[in-house]
Amino acid sequence: MPRIVETIVTTQDVSGQVHIAPLGLIAEGDGWVIAPFKPSRTLDNLTANPFAVASHTGDVRVFAGCVTGRRDWPTVKADVVRGVRLADAVSHWELAVESVQEDEQRPRFRCRLMHAATHKVWGGYNRAEAAVLELAVLTTRLAMLPPEKIDAELKYLEIAISKTAGPRELEAWEWLMEKVRAFRSGNTGAARKS
Amino acid sequence: MPRIVETIVTTQDVSGQVHIAPLGLIAEGDGWVIAPFKPSRTLDNLTANPFAVASHTGDVRVFAGCVTGRRDWPTVKADVVRGVRLADAVSHWELAVESVQEDEQRPRFRCRLMHAATHKVWGGYNRAEAAVLELAVLTTRLAMLPPEKIDAELKYLEIAISKTAGPRELEAWEWLMEKVRAFRSGNTGAARKS
Repeated sequence: MPRIVETIVTTQDVSGQVHIAPLGLIAEGDGWVIAPFKPSRTLDNLTANPFAVASHTGDVRVFAGCVTGRRDWPTVKADVVRGVRLADAVSHWELAVESVQEDEQRPRFRCRLMHAATHKVWGGYNRAEAAVLELAVLTTRLAMLPPEKIDAELKYLEIAISKTAGPRELEAWEWLMEKVRAFRSGNTGAARKS
Repeated sequence: MPRIVETIVTTQDVSGQVHIAPLGLIAEGDGWVIAPFKPSRTLDNLTANPFAVASHTGDVRVFAGCVTGRRDWPTVKADVVRGVRLADAVSHWELAVESVQEDEQRPRFRCRLMHAATHKVWGGYNRAEAAVLELAVLTTRLAMLPPEKIDAELKYLEIAISKTAGPRELEAWEWLMEKVRAFRSGNTGAARKS
């Protein structure tokens, strides 16, 4: 399997309207593949405007926010492509679609890295950030998993939260746990695709 | 609990001999606390030469290597304190010990951030990197955990490895799994403290 990095991908429609979505970018040679689900706004936008920006942020509230309906994160104009990046990014990549491989479920947009830039000193690994990302992934799969598996994963991830989280990670965790609790009480909301 | 970041800490003895160790730095106000175990070379070095450098690398082989006897990673001179940083760091912090709080097990060296610098564009989150870090922590606690708990954690962490790892993460994972297998076959080697 190829390496995958979890990033915040911003795309734009023809009118310039920005869509922000947490997505895994798939390494392929010296490029990156974006494989958005059908249907999704990322897919529509990449088709209309073949550029994407991947923002690398150490603030996992952006990931947790995007899967819990909090998509309003400040952005600034990208440097070389038509698009925006997260204002609070540690670093970001600007990508241009080179080719598209059609697929029933997830078309693959192969992108070339046009530009990369650093905005802040990266603060290193935090186990709670990783636990938040894992819970964010988990919350997109709640309906597919047996309750005891969800419980076991939550219990495991909570260890890193209790031992290493700061205020940002705790807030992100709480947003995601609200979603877990809402699902369990039957109030699941509409399924959202990025 | 305070926020903790997992870093590669380099310290030096009076002769300039470098010691490299993966350690969690504990946030305290605007500083960072290093709490090395007694006895350990990090503890001896911080006492003799009250500076430390925390390197933030995206290459988790350094973490996996340090807990499996592979401590020979290239370093370069630090910018402002007496010490070295990882040559391959994404970024690093240079720290000066401000005060020491004695403790039977883990004295706390409260450090001030003297300097921070970026060397490469951070490539964002990779779930396999996080899984390697978790396994690295796990391998330092093998003797304390029931075998079924170790199995359950391995099985969980392997998901992120199988789905998102690149060559570096796979190599780091394999080093750690060798250690797990050696422990299980009774060949545990001497306990190592950082």
